[in-house]
Parts: sequence; structure tokens; C-alpha cells
Amino acid sequence: MRDRMRNLRSLLAEKKTDAILLTSPLSIHYYTSFHGFALEEREGFALITKEKSYLLTSKLYEGAVNAIPDTTSQIYSSDSPFASLLKQLLIKHSVLSLGVEANNLTLSEFMSFKKLAKIIPLQIRTLRIKKTSEEIAAIQKACTIADIAFETIVPKIKAGITEKQVASSLENKIRNQGATISFRPIVAFGKNAAIPHHLTSDQKLMSNDLILIDFGAKVDGYCSDMTRTFFIGKSTEEQKKAYETVAISQDAAVTFLKQALKKNTKIRASDIDMISRTYIELKGYSTIPHSLGHGIGLEVHEPPYLGPGSIDQLEDGMIFSIEPGIYLEGKFGIRIEDLFTIQNGRLTQLTTASKLKLT
Amino acid sequence: MRDRMRNLRSLLAEKKTDAILLTSPLSIHYYTSFHGFALEEREGFALITKEKSYLLTSKLYEGAVNAIPDTTSQIYSSDSPFASLLKQLLIKHSVLSLGVEANNLTLSEFMSFKKLAKIIPLQIRTLRIKKTSEEIAAIQKACTIADIAFETIVPKIKAGITEKQVASSLENKIRNQGATISFRPIVAFGKNAAIPHHLTSDQKLMSNDLILIDFGAKVDGYCSDMTRTFFIGKSTEEQKKAYETVAISQDAAVTFLKQALKKNTKIRASDIDMISRTYIELKGYSTIPHSLGHGIGLEVHEPPYLGPGSIDQLEDGMIFSIEPGIYLEGKFGIRIEDLFTIQNGRLTQLTTASKLKLT
Repeated sequence: MRDRMRNLRSLLAEKKTDAILLTSPLSIHYYTSFHGFALEEREGFALITKEKSYLLTSKLYEGAVNAIPDTTSQIYSSDSPFASLLKQLLIKHSVLSLGVEANNLTLSEFMSFKKLAKIIPLQIRTLRIKKTSEEIAAIQKACTIADIAFETIVPKIKAGITEKQVASSLENKIRNQGATISFRPIVAFGKNAAIPHHLTSDQKLMSNDLILIDFGAKVDGYCSDMTRTFFIGKSTEEQKKAYETVAISQDAAVTFLKQALKKNTKIRASDIDMISRTYIELKGYSTIPHSLGHGIGLEVHEPPYLGPGSIDQLEDGMIFSIEPGIYLEGKFGIRIEDLFTIQNGRLTQLTTASKLKLT
Repeated sequence: MRDRMRNLRSLLAEKKTDAILLTSPLSIHYYTSFHGFALEEREGFALITKEKSYLLTSKLYEGAVNAIPDTTSQIYSSDSPFASLLKQLLIKHSVLSLGVEANNLTLSEFMSFKKLAKIIPLQIRTLRIKKTSEEIAAIQKACTIADIAFETIVPKIKAGITEKQVASSLENKIRNQGATISFRPIVAFGKNAAIPHHLTSDQKLMSNDLILIDFGAKVDGYCSDMTRTFFIGKSTEEQKKAYETVAISQDAAVTFLKQALKKNTKIRASDIDMISRTYIELKGYSTIPHSLGHGIGLEVHEPPYLGPGSIDQLEDGMIFSIEPGIYLEGKFGIRIEDLFTIQNGRLTQLTTASKLKLT
């Protein structure tokens, strides 16, 4: 927590900003350890000045925020509204320029706060790009829980079951292990799998159908993410060829990455994307209609981004997905997604649920 | 859907605004019926001009948005980014002033879009304040599912169970009925109940302990919300007196509301708050540390607000909670919450799970 705060304050110094107002519940969790605010509503704020950290919230959370170490609580109410409290603190700490989370602060808030200080829009999500061993452990645990959930439900998938029923069993298996889901599972049968973000429906599984499942678990706020595509019954030659292409394109990216790590060269995330993407195109398929992968942590999608336009480099401490796909509209879709981390210059795969064996 | 769109366009006309860019997934759901975008990320937009409705998203959702009636899809990509697509549409429809959701648009988006048109900050959540019969039916269904979940789990609550276990059983009972939860259930034992928004913990239930449960179900995107407080074993005289005070303060608000409806007078939401609040204060307790109630719909908390500073009036078609509470720090807390709707000038209670009977 102290390292994180030091990094945040270095950014403030670099940007010549006197303080930052954290509005995203995930940022507040990351920098103060308090994770009680709901994600959907604005239930509180954190103000980080050069010297002090404040948690500002309503009486509803007074007890909870008082228990958080290294922070001072400030309780707002109709008699003492948030804007007045903030104003007092800005004056107390001589804050003339106030950093904000540009991707989270709303226009209403901006219009209100710009009367109090010069507002400096900041991007702070990249400060979370390298994970500590505790963060990696939480994500590894989420991956293992998802692996177990997957292995448990697959034998129960039979013709006649609906996408929603499969999604619901997966959720239950994740919850039974004390975790939550990191996003609504995508379960797509047959031609529904050709839609990368298909909305899980009441579609029933037919015999000789293809199944795509994209889902994740969440442990202590940290997310996992994994996709598997498989068949009940027989797959066609066309399906086998597409599956093999996706599998090899993923392997190609992984192999390239391992070699680059051995050589200790800089690894551009866009290069990894290109390796997989080019292989799929060379085999005569349309390009992947999404990025090859994304970082993961408190959010399912966060830096680094593995896409054609990415400026990120892949380095020690990062965790990211590699998930090539082929989507044939009206026919079927294939995607294989695993999470990887770089630790001490070595690549480790975090998701291990079994994959289709092509014979 | 057409009535909703007409109301939105009337607001645009009234505010002399040529179009509105919807950014909140809930607004997009409400006005276009498309509910595929995740709540946590910006996966798409809707642009509503005087003549047309557009859904703008990436290739991931192309198939899904193409299936939505009365809207035109526009797919953005790295070659054809969102800002360029938006610019073209604004030019095509001669949009000089662009309305935005001031409580949802981020500062980054504002900085980017203000180059394209004059940005008009709008508040559109109040347009959802009156519910249609379909919306009321969905909320009623969510309430009934929550009622059943509650009645099923209560007999299983015994000394030794943890708050998290109770929350988990509730969630399972809701999911087994095909619904989801509208928010993380609050389960608080004994003195934890004195914290209005206690974070459900591993605290174990003792014999003769008090239990507060605040939770809801979600059906087709529509939320329910209910709180019950009860005891296993014996309650103390102090607890009984506080419970009775909360119950009567809720009844007082309901009775006042019913009489006002009979008289067909205007009903100020702040008056309803005052009735309950004053009763609790008169009995010698501290005032309720939160509002008496809130509207509910696609969001758990939305207009109308039943609080001291509210300017809302309660009218036909609205659905709201009435939830007085007494919180005695270090001792215990009591809250009773039910949802009500006004239909054809009559008040109906939507939540019916059983309550403590004081003898």
C-alpha cells in the first residue's frame, strides 16, 4: 500500500499537481484498501494530498472508513455537504491544482469542482499495470477457482441444456468456492459463438454442437478471465481446421514471447498481437475482430493492451490474456483465451482448464 | 419505447438541444431496449437526434445491435474511431448543440466531444420516474422472488452461521428463481446492525442475537429492495421498544400517504420523510441518519427521493421505498424497508415478506 501511494505521489509531483481526488471505487480500494463503496454509485471519495490521505463519505460508511489505517475520515451530510468539506481540505493543504481521474470524474462533478481548484485530468490506471505478489496470488486463486468450476460443469453439458443453464451452473460453482464472478459469463452454442460478445440466451444445445464459454472468477476484488471452445459429439472438418488455427496462433504468440524474454529484449504488446493475427490471416481467415489480449486486475480489462495500436510494453509483474479467435458469421466461432504473467523474466500460464484435443 | 423516446425528444426541444448522446448503459437500455453493454465499461453509445436513433459500438456487438428495431447501427474500429463516426453523424443531422448525461459523461469524453459541438449537460434520470405497467410488473416479480428467498432462508438461520453464509444462501435462492441480485446483500448481526451499510462479514451469529438483512432481486434489469430485522431467541426490552418505534414510524408515513391520496392533494416526498423522522425523534432517538426512502427501477436508487431536502412529489406510476431506522452504536440497529407503488391514486405495497410480530 505504501509503495502504491509513493508511486501516486510521484505522478503528482511529475504533473505539478498538489493533490488528487480519487472517485473510482477501484482506485480507492487500490490506494487506501477500503473496498466498501458500491461500483454503481458515488458513495465516497479519497483525497490524497502530499502529506495526508482522506476518505470522504456519508454517515452510512462512517464506522467502516474509521477502521481504515493511514487515512483520516471526513463525513459529509446535508448540513455539511461534500463540496464544502473538499473546499476546506483544499484550503488547509494549499491545493491550487487538483488532479482527477479523467476517465471516471463526471461532467457534473467537473463543473462543480472546477470552482475550487485548477482541475488537472490524469490517467492513473497504468499505475496498476505491474502487480505485487499478493495481487498475483489473488488472480491465480481466481484462475484456479474458474478452472475447477469449468472441469466440474463440462461433463454435465448434454444436448437440450440452455446457454443460460450452463452460465448459471458455472456461476454457482464459482460462488460455492467463496468467490464471485468477474463478469456475466458468455455461453454461446453453435452459430451464436460467431458473435464475440454473444448475450447468453435460452438457446438449447443440439447434438454435434459447438460450445464457447468465456468467463471468470473474482477473489478479493481481483479478476480472472478464460475462454474455452469445445464440442459435444462430432466436429466438422471446417471446425477442426479453424480450431487448430486458433490454437496454433495462440501458441505462436506464446513462443515468440518466451523467446523474447530469454533474449531479454523489449517486448512490444503490439508485436505479440501481430504474431497471432498474421497467422490467422495467412490461413485465409478474416482478421481477429478484437485485440489479441488485455491486462487484468481489479478490472477485467485494464492496461497493458495487446492490440495493433498499443504503445504498451510487456514487463515483469504484468498479467494479461492472449485470446485469438475466428468468427464465421452464421456458422460458428472459436476463441481460446488464457491468462499469463511475467515473473522474473519467465512466462507463466495462470489458467489451466483442459482444452480440446485434436486428433 | 415510443412514449419514452417522445418524452426524451420533448426535453431536447425544451432545452433547445439538437440531439443527445446517451452513455449510461441503463439509459441505452431504457430508450433503445438494448441491454447488452456491461455496466462497468464504455462498450457503446446511443445518439438520439430529432429524427433518428443510432447505436454506436464496436464489432463485438455488431450482430446484437443490428437486431434492435427502430435504431441504426454504426460500428467503430481503430480505422474508423468513435469520434469520427460521431462527427459525421452530427454533421449529417446538423447538430450544433449536443446534450449529454452530465452525471455519466466522463471528463475525458467531455474534453474530446466539446470539439464537435456545444455540449449541453442534461439530467435525464427523472424521465424514468414514472413506471409503465411492464416496468411495475418486473419490479413486482423481483419483489416476490426476494420474498420467497427470504422466507426460505429464515428457518435455516441458527446460532453459529456467519453473515456471509446467510448472504450467500439468499443469493442462491434468488438465482435459483432465474433472477439476479440488485446489490450485494447486507447481512448484519448484533452490533454490526448499528452500521447502516455494514459490509457483510465472517461474524458468527450468537444465540439471542439480532439479524438485519437488506437485499433485493433483479428481473429484466429491474430491481427490488427490502429490509427485515428480526431475532433468534429473545430480544431485550430496549430492542423491542426500538423495533416498535421503527414499525410505527413506517406505518405513520404509509397512513399519511394513503390519506393524502384519498384527498387527492399534492404529496411532497419531503413531508413523508418528515412524518417518520419526527416520530422517531419524538420517541427520544437520534434522527434517521439517511433518507426515509428512494425511487427504484433500473437503478436501486433513483428519483423520487424521500428525504428532508427533496423537491420531488409522489405521483401515480412511481415506485419507492419507505425505510426508517434506528441505529444505536455499539449495541444494535433496526431498519424496516418496503417498496410501495401508487397506481390509480391508490398505494400498493410490493414487498410482503413476513415481519417480526411483537406481542
